[in-house]
Amino acid sequence: MERITGHTRLTGLLGSPVGHSISPMMHNESFRQLGLDYAYLAFDVGTDRLKTAVEGLKVLNARGFNVTMPDKNLMAELVDKLSTSAEIIGAVNTVVNDDGVLTGHNTDGTGYMLSVKDAGFDIIGKKMTLLGAGGAATAILVQAALDGVKEIDVFSIKDQFFDRARQTVDELNRRTDCKVSLYELGDDRLLHKSIGESAILTNGTSVGMKPNTDACILQDTSVLRPDLIVSDVIYNPEKTKLLALAEAAGCPTFNGLYMLMYQGAEAFKIWTGKDMPIPIIKEKFFTR
Amino acid sequence: MERITGHTRLTGLLGSPVGHSISPMMHNESFRQLGLDYAYLAFDVGTDRLKTAVEGLKVLNARGFNVTMPDKNLMAELVDKLSTSAEIIGAVNTVVNDDGVLTGHNTDGTGYMLSVKDAGFDIIGKKMTLLGAGGAATAILVQAALDGVKEIDVFSIKDQFFDRARQTVDELNRRTDCKVSLYELGDDRLLHKSIGESAILTNGTSVGMKPNTDACILQDTSVLRPDLIVSDVIYNPEKTKLLALAEAAGCPTFNGLYMLMYQGAEAFKIWTGKDMPIPIIKEKFFTR
Repeated sequence: MERITGHTRLTGLLGSPVGHSISPMMHNESFRQLGLDYAYLAFDVGTDRLKTAVEGLKVLNARGFNVTMPDKNLMAELVDKLSTSAEIIGAVNTVVNDDGVLTGHNTDGTGYMLSVKDAGFDIIGKKMTLLGAGGAATAILVQAALDGVKEIDVFSIKDQFFDRARQTVDELNRRTDCKVSLYELGDDRLLHKSIGESAILTNGTSVGMKPNTDACILQDTSVLRPDLIVSDVIYNPEKTKLLALAEAAGCPTFNGLYMLMYQGAEAFKIWTGKDMPIPIIKEKFFTR
Repeated sequence: MERITGHTRLTGLLGSPVGHSISPMMHNESFRQLGLDYAYLAFDVGTDRLKTAVEGLKVLNARGFNVTMPDKNLMAELVDKLSTSAEIIGAVNTVVNDDGVLTGHNTDGTGYMLSVKDAGFDIIGKKMTLLGAGGAATAILVQAALDGVKEIDVFSIKDQFFDRARQTVDELNRRTDCKVSLYELGDDRLLHKSIGESAILTNGTSVGMKPNTDACILQDTSVLRPDLIVSDVIYNPEKTKLLALAEAAGCPTFNGLYMLMYQGAEAFKIWTGKDMPIPIIKEKFFTR
């Protein structure tokens, strides 16, 4: 028997494309497991129609929704309130609707931090080397700084994100106790020095993602040492070239799959007040 | 396992109130039975927010939606196209979205005509006495005239619907071969004469609905004869006083429950191109 009734509230995902997202399965299965009266659907909506979609979802009394590319930045301008991390990141991946008041959150960074913990590591009070300054990297940067990582060196190519990254870094240095620095990727001496001082190296770029699986953001892997945690936001392929090389060097590693799961779990918590049933969700959708 | 994925398309119900509607169960169960990738949710939306909701649903690429009170008349002004019956009725209960083009239908009348057939009767080419000129009665009137009922006498009190009913009657006389007449309810001589000439007597008013179950639209039941079909759009109570008196007089009777089911089946067909699995839906949700 179907569980949807006249009282079931809508949640969902806005972005483009969204058809292959795992989020509908993850959330609906969690609703079902916990007997929560919500349904989660994906809606292919680009930035040109985002405002209309959001106004519609508000009138339809949707409980909330996730936002993915290319809508995350514009979404930050359409909500009534922003969480601290969403404000600093300048992007929203989760919206909650409290009686018509929309609050924007960004759970991508929290998702990453929970995936670190899930892998058995504690990086609070330690140093991180973070590669990239795009959306995923920025979310990780901001949340890590807010959560109490002691020092973060960000390395990015001089792309369209570099200037905005400079502002984010400045703001984090003002607003948190974390010491954040931004460097140009390509300065190998600085990069190797940073990695040498870090507890964790995180690839927050798309370098190495399918179909370019031969690419590796780190050219010289002699800096990898067995007590360095190496993580990648990429989960397709499951093991990027970076993670394979790190594994060969004896480093503990993990990919971005659980970051994806935990950003969803955080959104779920914001909407329902309940914990996503992680063991079940892992088994059904995130078996590595 | 949940059946909703990133490809599942939204359908639903707009109106207020909608929480207790049986439509979500009926449609979702049918989608599931036929393996169709849609979900149906109810949205409590009044006329003041209907336009925003409809624009949102369009952008969310909803396949279509049902519309119930108090939104049916305004909805007829918000669609791009109208079916013939919806145009004459001036009300829409079903909208289909074809790549951003919204067409408004009214399946209430078709639902009634299918419920006549389901009860084992054929009234095409025959005469009907119809009581009432509100939304349900008008939908029945228009569809019956379009479907080939030969003559329809409408009896209504002089309420806010009477003048509009006059226009509808005129339009049907112009556009169909059905001979339609409008009379004031209270003229017992004309009413009895009409019933005497009719194959079917239909109560399209809410007289006799819970909690006023003692009320009966027909004062003098001496006109009931065993070869007169008596039907009621009311299904709560299952047996109105009218139907009980008719049954006592030996008339075949049926209530409005299957009209409700078949208006949904027609909407289902419009959205999916498939027939609702009526025997299953009857058993699960419409056992009398």
